Amino acid sequence: MDTYDVIIIGGGASALSAGLYSARYNMATLIIMEELGGETATAATIENYPGYKSIDGYDLITRMHEQVGALGVKMVTARAESVSRENHCFTVTAGGEEHRGKSLILAVGRERRKLGIPREDELRGRGVSYCATCDGPLFGEGIVGMVGGGDSAVKGAILLSQYVSEVFVIYRGEQLSSEPINLERLSRIPKVKILYKTQVKELLGDNELKGVVLDNPYNGNDRLELDGLFVEIGADPRDELARSLGVELDERNYIIVDNMMRTNVDGVFASGDVTNASGDLKQVITSAAQGVLAATSAYKDVIEHGHFCETHARGFVLPQV
Amino acid sequence: MDTYDVIIIGGGASALSAGLYSARYNMATLIIMEELGGETATAATIENYPGYKSIDGYDLITRMHEQVGALGVKMVTARAESVSRENHCFTVTAGGEEHRGKSLILAVGRERRKLGIPREDELRGRGVSYCATCDGPLFGEGIVGMVGGGDSAVKGAILLSQYVSEVFVIYRGEQLSSEPINLERLSRIPKVKILYKTQVKELLGDNELKGVVLDNPYNGNDRLELDGLFVEIGADPRDELARSLGVELDERNYIIVDNMMRTNVDGVFASGDVTNASGDLKQVITSAAQGVLAATSAYKDVIEHGHFCETHARGFVLPQV
Repeated sequence: MDTYDVIIIGGGASALSAGLYSARYNMATLIIMEELGGETATAATIENYPGYKSIDGYDLITRMHEQVGALGVKMVTARAESVSRENHCFTVTAGGEEHRGKSLILAVGRERRKLGIPREDELRGRGVSYCATCDGPLFGEGIVGMVGGGDSAVKGAILLSQYVSEVFVIYRGEQLSSEPINLERLSRIPKVKILYKTQVKELLGDNELKGVVLDNPYNGNDRLELDGLFVEIGADPRDELARSLGVELDERNYIIVDNMMRTNVDGVFASGDVTNASGDLKQVITSAAQGVLAATSAYKDVIEHGHFCETHARGFVLPQV
Repeated sequence: MDTYDVIIIGGGASALSAGLYSARYNMATLIIMEELGGETATAATIENYPGYKSIDGYDLITRMHEQVGALGVKMVTARAESVSRENHCFTVTAGGEEHRGKSLILAVGRERRKLGIPREDELRGRGVSYCATCDGPLFGEGIVGMVGGGDSAVKGAILLSQYVSEVFVIYRGEQLSSEPINLERLSRIPKVKILYKTQVKELLGDNELKGVVLDNPYNGNDRLELDGLFVEIGADPRDELARSLGVELDERNYIIVDNMMRTNVDGVFASGDVTNASGDLKQVITSAAQGVLAATSAYKDVIEHGHFCETHARGFVLPQV
């Protein structure tokens, strides 16, 4: 088994940016991704990545992917199931195979939250979706709902309004919380209606979604006919791998990193949405920069401590740390 | 006099990225720049900005500039000479005019270091240059020197080798310190010679540079004939404005910021090369992300405290903080 200088887990902007710099530091680099893209790929039109006035999220991530690929970085498409650490050596199991690295960058992002109501999984892909960019065009002239009140929900509703005949934003709160430029845009679209203080209680329809039951009636009716329902109610950090390594998390389960993306565990770095690096601001540009910082810290670490892993690989027993 | 929500001082990637997000937060935004570009503009070919496999530095900064301009951000080209703070109001004097803002982002970067030897200023632009990207093509088939041993010097020498017949890297140290990918590239260029443990003592030539005197002879001769001499020996943060506001600096005079680019002074934020945000790693991508974070912090601050400045503007006397 080869020993990589750094193993990066993740397939989004942060992982790829970490890969870009790792390769430029001449480190033997492996990226393990469940799928290419991360949040960037689902972000529809991106207008706030400095240097691109307007670019499709999937297009941007594809460019990053090509940029890293051109440097000869090895990439494996598989879910990283587990990771273990022995002194300064990490073993990552992904798709049934083991990979060994001298350092580790966790750039695994977040998992989208679900509504947590009956039949949600059953109707996923049959009217229920978690990605407006991906599935919006499927609903033709239909009527769709968007559950949520944050930036992703607002941007998603704006996007959906370009495809469908009517969009209901269904939000339990009293005030949307989004970038002002997006709130203003949303308010100018007549086909968007916002239902405040409202939650979806039930999903209607047999093989495909036909509508929802609301906990707060709209126009005197608690049933709302819909062809599609999009869910953008936040996300939770994918913290399993970090936990198994003893990496410290904050009260919301984000990996705690310092300004150079170091965690409390030697040889383990983290970047992007899974971390607390930039608080609630999770952007493509911040994730990319954090990936670059994580790679830089990993590089310094491997120069300093990487030989422990080499020794280990040759069969020596290292003293326990 | 109008009161801006935020005044950004600087003309590089960090200032423009701060402007981009400030505008998207619907803040009345003014950017005061001595000139457009910052370090990015002088960086020759950039291959490590995620999303662009290869782009000329000036081209990248031009795109950022257009992106911000399209959002209606006001930009003034002038040197910001002084700044004062009264409660939560800032007055910036630039080019003889006063501008008022509710918050301030310092993204003023660093000043290139000079050799500090006689006639350096006199021969600047007559053979002595601080920007290989800008002036490299002027030296045709000539012989040039590059003083320095860091990443900028190494990248500069690689670039110069594409134009000229011979490049001498003149470095006082014993080992170049640069991104490994660049060191490797440099080592493969036969027309580049590296003179270690060597410094330039004197500049030769009357109206234009003809050569230099070295403190450590090369091939038995302490005189080296050169058509051009490039200087890449580091840079110092532009700390004057920060100092005048009582902003805390580290031991190397970089502005101390937290992970959201807040300084110790209310309403004052900083980003990019002038800060300690990412340690010694000063990259386009990290500067851009820091600008975004500074704008986000300024936005929160203006929502919370900006009204103090409004009140002040209407002539009320505010209690001293």
